[in-house]
Amino acid sequence: MTVQDWERLYASRMSRVVASDIRERMKLLGRPGIIHLGGGLPDPAFFPRAAIADAAARVLGEAGSARTALQYAASEGHRPLKDWLAGYMGSLGVACGPDNILITNGSQQALDFVGRLFLSPGDGMLVERPTFIGALRAFDAYEARYGWLPASPADRPAMAAGRGAKLGYAGPDFRNPTGTCMTRPEREALLDAAAELGIALLEDGCYEKLRYEGSDVPSLLALEAQRTGGIDQGRVIYTGTFSKTVVPSLRVGWIVGPAPVIRKLVLIKQASDLATSALNQMIMLEVVKDGLDGLVRQARGIYGARRDSMLQALADHMPAGVSWTRPEGGLYVWLTLPPGMDGGLAAERALAEADVSVVGGASFYPIESDRNTMRLSFSLASEEDAREGIRRLGALLARMAVGQ
Amino acid sequence: MTVQDWERLYASRMSRVVASDIRERMKLLGRPGIIHLGGGLPDPAFFPRAAIADAAARVLGEAGSARTALQYAASEGHRPLKDWLAGYMGSLGVACGPDNILITNGSQQALDFVGRLFLSPGDGMLVERPTFIGALRAFDAYEARYGWLPASPADRPAMAAGRGAKLGYAGPDFRNPTGTCMTRPEREALLDAAAELGIALLEDGCYEKLRYEGSDVPSLLALEAQRTGGIDQGRVIYTGTFSKTVVPSLRVGWIVGPAPVIRKLVLIKQASDLATSALNQMIMLEVVKDGLDGLVRQARGIYGARRDSMLQALADHMPAGVSWTRPEGGLYVWLTLPPGMDGGLAAERALAEADVSVVGGASFYPIESDRNTMRLSFSLASEEDAREGIRRLGALLARMAVGQ
Repeated sequence: MTVQDWERLYASRMSRVVASDIRERMKLLGRPGIIHLGGGLPDPAFFPRAAIADAAARVLGEAGSARTALQYAASEGHRPLKDWLAGYMGSLGVACGPDNILITNGSQQALDFVGRLFLSPGDGMLVERPTFIGALRAFDAYEARYGWLPASPADRPAMAAGRGAKLGYAGPDFRNPTGTCMTRPEREALLDAAAELGIALLEDGCYEKLRYEGSDVPSLLALEAQRTGGIDQGRVIYTGTFSKTVVPSLRVGWIVGPAPVIRKLVLIKQASDLATSALNQMIMLEVVKDGLDGLVRQARGIYGARRDSMLQALADHMPAGVSWTRPEGGLYVWLTLPPGMDGGLAAERALAEADVSVVGGASFYPIESDRNTMRLSFSLASEEDAREGIRRLGALLARMAVGQ
Repeated sequence: MTVQDWERLYASRMSRVVASDIRERMKLLGRPGIIHLGGGLPDPAFFPRAAIADAAARVLGEAGSARTALQYAASEGHRPLKDWLAGYMGSLGVACGPDNILITNGSQQALDFVGRLFLSPGDGMLVERPTFIGALRAFDAYEARYGWLPASPADRPAMAAGRGAKLGYAGPDFRNPTGTCMTRPEREALLDAAAELGIALLEDGCYEKLRYEGSDVPSLLALEAQRTGGIDQGRVIYTGTFSKTVVPSLRVGWIVGPAPVIRKLVLIKQASDLATSALNQMIMLEVVKDGLDGLVRQARGIYGARRDSMLQALADHMPAGVSWTRPEGGLYVWLTLPPGMDGGLAAERALAEADVSVVGGASFYPIESDRNTMRLSFSLASEEDAREGIRRLGALLARMAVGQ
């Protein structure tokens, strides 16, 4: 068959298959000397390699546990890990049991599965403005019609536009791409809006533990459970991951939600890839059961210092007319450029002219992009490199401001 | 929200979310003393635990390879594993390069992704009669309309019914559930039919290496490439897995197909779960690069002997009117019971009355089930246990034949 023959067969599906700018760009970034302020990769210098190697040796070193680790696992996840996660979620104020939990291949797979459960072509999917690009790519597969999540029931235009929607998606803690955190009143107002619209809410908790200042705010899941008497009565489905606090490539994330919804998601998991690797789940459990607190402390120390350094560099080097968020956690700072300046063009020029990788902001909007925006990440580059990158970026933006 | 509230939100999707009889039943089978002739689980007694433990220690023992193993991997897969697989596929008569390969979480995920690329609600999806239940559950997610794959262009009713279909799915080698193998002329005829219908063909090669007698037959992918001058010009997408020859729970499978199709599937992988665990891909490469031939020989020895033993037990113990396939490979034997006898009921009674687990055949048909069928697997039970299970099953079927 020719390429045209293939395209005839899958043309009707192509709106489902959209390249993510960020991961496509990552391939272009292999050349040496680039200062990476683009993707939100964790710094591999701090991966707990020895702890993972020890855990793998323990799991595989004993015949009984090795059999479990290497055989097909239950679709719902390795029971001891689910039990541990039930306790962990309890420590975050969420009372739940193993029937409320499904293990996924990182939280990206959770976004895919929840989209699959709720979205038919044309169904309304409400997201924050801006929102995580990876979530858009997951929901795209189900041909959602995007709209904006109302901040509260008083947000009348968004409420009117959101009528009939099925699902909302929010990252209240240090969300990608802005790095900002919803206050408790903002969370309560969002829950009010979701209740009035009758939608389910998918909460992305992937950065919840990466707080560098301020106080924890209860998750939407926890607040909703307080309102309704328990998560089985709530409208929130929560997803978490160990990708940012331990390592990404064990691919272990989880979903927490009402037990009947989890049962549906288990069937989706089964049809999708049967089960997450039992070996990886068992290794992860060995690592986190004694080590998660230490890893979280380490990550907060490193990324917190990098955030401070980046904010100082922005203050030192950004030209007039550029503003930015001051995140209390997470991995990102969001820049707003002067009106009319294109963040995507600035990102292209930063890479070509200054060897600095950043991400233009337009990709984080499924509709109605604010093009004068840009995302910086402070997760990967050293403080020194990031300062130099910000200096170069500031100089570029100053040139662009005067039409050069 | 109540269960009814949730169901209102996802009711339109429920045809996507169907429990697989087999995996649901697996949960019921935990009680001791059951003889397992149901699911096709590989026997964990033969898992290469030491080789996997050694590989994990090597990959994690060196700082550079550990960083790669633990960081986000490329969505298309770990390049050295793809290079190795290109050589492996070459040994099976398929000339291809790394751009023709995507790594997946086992071959189940390949079925999901190919369904997602091709199928819109109501699109025609042609399958063998009977076919793999896990494939049906994967395609269900895209709300396909099922029909039967024609055996050849001369199969006029199936050809007429298949007009307008997008995709066909076939397992030519020792397919689940029948265990039978397509001859080369049958494969050529299927390719002729696919060409006349203009459909893409998804070939499930998961049992390809598990041949116990007879000679290898080239895959549909290889035959089509011979016809068209290369797999980039063909209409076949192939999926393979290490789940049956190495272990299931590293979750490493792959797709081979035309490079432009693979590029689309990479985007689906990215949106679905970003990437397969780099650690697992690196461990698998370490294990298979020197050890796959030995593992395949071992599997052939063990499962071949169990097949022989099961076929002898069937000859010894089945009552008149029961017939069965004589598979040259794979893990399954397919029974045809006397007309009017229900294989699903027989399976229920076998578990309840005889402590024998088997699978009724009706689940393997998406439409128009032949209910007087049953699948047995010889992968997990010892020869002695399987013989006893067959003896009890034969006695039950003899009772059912006389209305008891």
